[in-house]
Amino acid sequence: MDKPATIRDVARVSGVSVGTVSRSLNAPETVRPGTLGKVRAAIQQLGFQPDSRAQNMRRRNTMTVGFVIDDIANPWHASCFKAVDAEMRQRGYSLYLMSTNGRATEEAAAIDMLQHGRADGMIMTINNEQDARTIKRLKELRVPSVLLDRDIPLDIDAVLTEHATGLRQATSYLIELGHRRIAIITAGSDIRPGRERVRGFVEAFQRSGLPVPEDLIRSQSLSVDFGFREATALLQMPERPTAIIAAGNRILVGVLRAIQQQGVSVPQDISLIGCDRSDVALLYPGPITLIDRPVEEIGRTAAQLLLERLGGHSDRPAQRISFPTQLIMGGSCLPVPKR
Amino acid sequence: MDKPATIRDVARVSGVSVGTVSRSLNAPETVRPGTLGKVRAAIQQLGFQPDSRAQNMRRRNTMTVGFVIDDIANPWHASCFKAVDAEMRQRGYSLYLMSTNGRATEEAAAIDMLQHGRADGMIMTINNEQDARTIKRLKELRVPSVLLDRDIPLDIDAVLTEHATGLRQATSYLIELGHRRIAIITAGSDIRPGRERVRGFVEAFQRSGLPVPEDLIRSQSLSVDFGFREATALLQMPERPTAIIAAGNRILVGVLRAIQQQGVSVPQDISLIGCDRSDVALLYPGPITLIDRPVEEIGRTAAQLLLERLGGHSDRPAQRISFPTQLIMGGSCLPVPKR
Repeated sequence: MDKPATIRDVARVSGVSVGTVSRSLNAPETVRPGTLGKVRAAIQQLGFQPDSRAQNMRRRNTMTVGFVIDDIANPWHASCFKAVDAEMRQRGYSLYLMSTNGRATEEAAAIDMLQHGRADGMIMTINNEQDARTIKRLKELRVPSVLLDRDIPLDIDAVLTEHATGLRQATSYLIELGHRRIAIITAGSDIRPGRERVRGFVEAFQRSGLPVPEDLIRSQSLSVDFGFREATALLQMPERPTAIIAAGNRILVGVLRAIQQQGVSVPQDISLIGCDRSDVALLYPGPITLIDRPVEEIGRTAAQLLLERLGGHSDRPAQRISFPTQLIMGGSCLPVPKR
Repeated sequence: MDKPATIRDVARVSGVSVGTVSRSLNAPETVRPGTLGKVRAAIQQLGFQPDSRAQNMRRRNTMTVGFVIDDIANPWHASCFKAVDAEMRQRGYSLYLMSTNGRATEEAAAIDMLQHGRADGMIMTINNEQDARTIKRLKELRVPSVLLDRDIPLDIDAVLTEHATGLRQATSYLIELGHRRIAIITAGSDIRPGRERVRGFVEAFQRSGLPVPEDLIRSQSLSVDFGFREATALLQMPERPTAIIAAGNRILVGVLRAIQQQGVSVPQDISLIGCDRSDVALLYPGPITLIDRPVEEIGRTAAQLLLERLGGHSDRPAQRISFPTQLIMGGSCLPVPKR
């Protein structure tokens, strides 16, 4: 084992003064970007540990945090990434984004690579909470991590959304407008958003004393393709729904494609509620009524939880912080005409 | 200086056989992701060089390629990232995405950090082709790099788009529909897309023997905000344009916001042409007529150019490969009524 690198080694390798290295660590905003880049590269190259009491001398300080998502084209992830990035950057960290394309093997490879020397911590939206490989990895995490919108009974920080309340509110609103044939398209029960959204949907009917339209619950995936396929099927039913809740922002894109292809008009032919602010939802003429969540706050909170751990508070119990949703009224819902 | 690491060192540190390390380098798809992650981490930790003739022994082999963009929320970047990622992943590389928020200092810091030990190569869309700091960095690049849609008179590979032809075609189409008061909103002359798009726009008028509507050329930025501001101003002119070309996919979002806010209808009140396939453009009722470019091919080509350099062909002259655009007819343009 080599001797641990010192701040002098970092200064020598990066060709700057010890004072500049110190400022790079403690006040990166005061250091010229070119210099900062060289100092960070030297820190990584030498495996320098600013905290000499660091328990694990083998772990390198990369000043990097991994951000693992399933789809870079998801605008919610993009907004969340920006919020996390802004917060981490202030503390001298940069983000390493890995997009796993929703494939379990790529997700596993990303987590393994990041935690074996590439990153000091991770913020993750995993694809499946019940996958044995994933759970095994999360049980044996080598770096502090935060789960985004995922729920696993392990001692890991998590930032969540109150999806059930959001869906109950949206469904109740449609019920009040006279809708009974309401469809929901959302993730499967393998991830928390899927379970919680269906639960809220069902509860809204139960609280109104109405039968739950079980045949209109489509719970499997958050993808555009799933949204398109299910909306197409729903629109072709003999007794088609009068309203669709696209419970997922990529699902909404698929639903709008189906609506476009079938030549159906929103809200005249069908009422529609989507999820999350996005260009598509906000610019669609109407615009689309949305179940929104505070993405900047969610990202900032995830970053802060991780920074606490990276700053040495690695022994506090795991925290689960949940954010409420808000129903933003657009123009995509109409009352059902009385018969 | 330490002795260069060998494949045996990598095998020892990652706890696998030499054969597995070899397969991780030459056929990563045959290696289990968990194993692959550990091998890659060991390669990075040890600074292992698969090619023993590597000229620069100090440079570490990171099996990582930096992808530098200005805005992760730009769906074109997201599609391009996916195409590059798919290509690089097959060869065992992972992508390190850095989003610079369009700020020169963050861009400089990102380039410096990546090329000082974090990445073996870079694919970049820089913010300003004329910034002295940026040019200095690009002159002294330490790793092979590819420019995306940017044009700098240096010996660097570049993948470009024939924006001038695309704009000439779109503008001529509007002229044929009877439009004369045509506005263009696009990037400034500090980047190639801005220069080329304005050139194509102007040429279309010149070829038709018509005066160029100089007061309707708004060339400064690709941002949503610029698109919104300029479209708002254009729509409030006493003699407002009958058509707008939103020459940039983020600009289109801003233009649609202005159109929504001013209560103007597309195409009844104003004809509109956008750029690049995006959810917003394709799902907007009509949909929006688009100047499109083959984003998957562009991304794949950038990856291939970089892989050639990483594979040892570092001495060939720089290549500039340009892709044509295609006008995709939507329903967002109408002929100008005859007076």
